[in-house]
Amino acid sequence: MKKLINEPDDVVADALRGIEAAHGDRVRVTFDPYTIVRVDAPVKGKVGLVSGGGSGHEPLHGGFVGPGMLDAACPGEVFTSPTPDQMLEATKAVDGGAGVVHIVKNYTGDVLNFEMAAELAKAEGIEVDTILTNDDVAVEDSLYTAGRRGVGVTVLVEKIAGAAADAGKSLQEVTEVGRRVNAAGRTMGMALTPCITPASGEPSFELDEDEVEIGIGIHGEPGRFREKIGPASQIAERLMTPILEDLPFSSGDSVLAFVNGMGGTPLIELYIVYAEVAKIAAAHGLKIERNLVGNYITSLEMQGCSITLLRLDDELTRYWDAPVNTPALRWGA
Amino acid sequence: MKKLINEPDDVVADALRGIEAAHGDRVRVTFDPYTIVRVDAPVKGKVGLVSGGGSGHEPLHGGFVGPGMLDAACPGEVFTSPTPDQMLEATKAVDGGAGVVHIVKNYTGDVLNFEMAAELAKAEGIEVDTILTNDDVAVEDSLYTAGRRGVGVTVLVEKIAGAAADAGKSLQEVTEVGRRVNAAGRTMGMALTPCITPASGEPSFELDEDEVEIGIGIHGEPGRFREKIGPASQIAERLMTPILEDLPFSSGDSVLAFVNGMGGTPLIELYIVYAEVAKIAAAHGLKIERNLVGNYITSLEMQGCSITLLRLDDELTRYWDAPVNTPALRWGA
Repeated sequence: MKKLINEPDDVVADALRGIEAAHGDRVRVTFDPYTIVRVDAPVKGKVGLVSGGGSGHEPLHGGFVGPGMLDAACPGEVFTSPTPDQMLEATKAVDGGAGVVHIVKNYTGDVLNFEMAAELAKAEGIEVDTILTNDDVAVEDSLYTAGRRGVGVTVLVEKIAGAAADAGKSLQEVTEVGRRVNAAGRTMGMALTPCITPASGEPSFELDEDEVEIGIGIHGEPGRFREKIGPASQIAERLMTPILEDLPFSSGDSVLAFVNGMGGTPLIELYIVYAEVAKIAAAHGLKIERNLVGNYITSLEMQGCSITLLRLDDELTRYWDAPVNTPALRWGA
Repeated sequence: MKKLINEPDDVVADALRGIEAAHGDRVRVTFDPYTIVRVDAPVKGKVGLVSGGGSGHEPLHGGFVGPGMLDAACPGEVFTSPTPDQMLEATKAVDGGAGVVHIVKNYTGDVLNFEMAAELAKAEGIEVDTILTNDDVAVEDSLYTAGRRGVGVTVLVEKIAGAAADAGKSLQEVTEVGRRVNAAGRTMGMALTPCITPASGEPSFELDEDEVEIGIGIHGEPGRFREKIGPASQIAERLMTPILEDLPFSSGDSVLAFVNGMGGTPLIELYIVYAEVAKIAAAHGLKIERNLVGNYITSLEMQGCSITLLRLDDELTRYWDAPVNTPALRWGA
C-alpha cells in the first residue's frame, strides 16, 4: 500500500487538519467529535443542512460546507458511519431556529445513526427532517445497505436543497425539494481498479488486468457484473441504459448530467465519458441543460466513474444555478 | 492498460468532444487544428492570453479558458507539444488589438513551437510576448528540457496574468506580472506510481511496491532520487526543503501554497499533505495568505503530488483574488 498518509489510524484527523489549515476562513473544524461547520453558523432563521458519512469520498461532504450548500458535515472514519454524537453536535451548531435537515445516504449505519441523532436533537427542542438518498440503480440491497445505495445524487441534493434553504424556504419546503431531487435522479457506477482502505492495507476486491466491474458501490460493494474492458462508449452505454430505463427518462426531458470520477481517474478520461453520455442522451431525445464533470463523490483512489442523470424542472434548475461558495463547488459568489 | 477511453489515437479528440459538450456555453472547440477558445473571443482592447502544451495534464490548460484567465488553449497529443499552426490559430482567434501573451512551460518542443508561432503571428501584424515558466527546482536539464521544467506555477501565472489582462493592463504589463509570478514561485513534485500514456500502453517508469520518486516531472521524467516511502510528513519535508532554500523564502514572507495532485491521488491525501505543508511553512515563519488544494496540473493517472510556493505581494494577491470563471477555477463570478 502506497499512500500519502502518516499513520493509517490518523488519516481522517490529519486530513481534517489540512481542511482546517486550508479553509479556516470558511469552516470551523472540531476534532472531538469530528465536525466541519460553516464559520458563520448558525445562520439565524435559515434551515440548517447537515450531512455526513464515512470518509474516503472527498470532497463529499466536508468540501460542500459553505453558503448555498451544507451548514455542516460529519466525517466518520474511512468508510465508517459517523456517530450520533457527531451528528448531534453538528445539528446543534447549525440550528438557526428554523429547523435542521439531515441529508443521509442510504447505508444502514448512516441511517440508524442519523435517526438516533435526530431523536436526540428533537429531545433538545430542534426540529429535524431527513432526506434519504438512494439513487444507485445497480442493485437492490448490498453489503451495507437495505434497498438502493445513496451515491451521486447526494451531491445534487446538497446543492439544490442548500439553495432552497438559502432562499428562505421552510424546513418542510427544503426537505420536499431535496426529496424531489432524489426521486428524479438515478446513478450507476463502475470501477477499473479497487480501492485500498488505509486501515486494511488490502484492495477492497480483486479485478483482472483487463476486467471492469459494472454497478460498483462507492465502498467497493459488488455491482451487477464483471466483463472485459471495452471502449468508453460501451462503458457509458452499460451505465446509461439502466439509468434511462429506471426513472424512466423520456424524450424531451431536460436533465442535469453528472460524470463523476471515483478518485483515481484523471479528468481527461471523465471528459471522454462525458462525450459518450452526451451522445447517448441526444439519441434518447434528452436535453442536457446542466452538467458537472469531475471528482465529487469518490472512493479513495479507485479508478472508475459514475454517471448521474437528474430530471430538471424550472425550480430545480434555478436552485442549481444559485450562488454557492464551498471549497469544492463554487460559482456566483 | 485499463483506461476509460475509446481508441488510444482518439484520446485527445474524444476528450475535446467532451469539453465541447460540457462547456460549449463558455468555449469554442476547434478540431483542425485543436484549440479551445473563449466563446466571446477576441475581447476588444484586452490583451489575449494563450497557453498550451501536451495533453494529459488536465484541467491544464483547457480547463482554465474563460474570463479572468486564458483566452485560448492549444492541446497537443498526450505528452506531445502542440504545433505552431495550433498556436497561430489560437493567437489570431484571441487578438483583440492589444497584443497576445504566450504562456509557455519550459519544455524544448513547446518553446520552439511557440517561438515559431510568435514569429508567424508577428508577420501577420499581431504583437506577441512570451512568459516562460521554469519553476521546478528538482533538476537542471531533463528528458525534454534545457534548464528547469515549467510545472505548478504555470497555473498561478495563468490566473494572475489573466486578472491583469482583465484589469486592462498593457501587453508589457501583463507579461511583466506573469514573469514576476514565475520568478517568485518554486515547485517540486513526487510520484507513488508511474502513469501510462494511451499510445504506449506501458508505464512511464518502474517503481518498487514500497518506493517513491522525489522530484519527478509531469511526464514521468526522472527526479532527484528514489527512496522507500515514508510518512506524508517526510514526503512534504523532502519537497519543501529544496523549495524553501531555492528562492530563498524568508521568515515573514507571505505566500500562496499550492498542493497539487498528479491525477490519481485522492483529495483526502492532498489535504493530509497540505496539513504538513502548513506546519513546515509556519515553522519557517511563512504566512500562508492564500492556498489551492486539488488536481490542477496532472500527469494522467499518476499518483503523487507537487507543492508550489509563491511569494505574494499586494498586487499578486489582488490579481489572485480577482473574479475568474473557467471550468476548473471559478470564484467571484
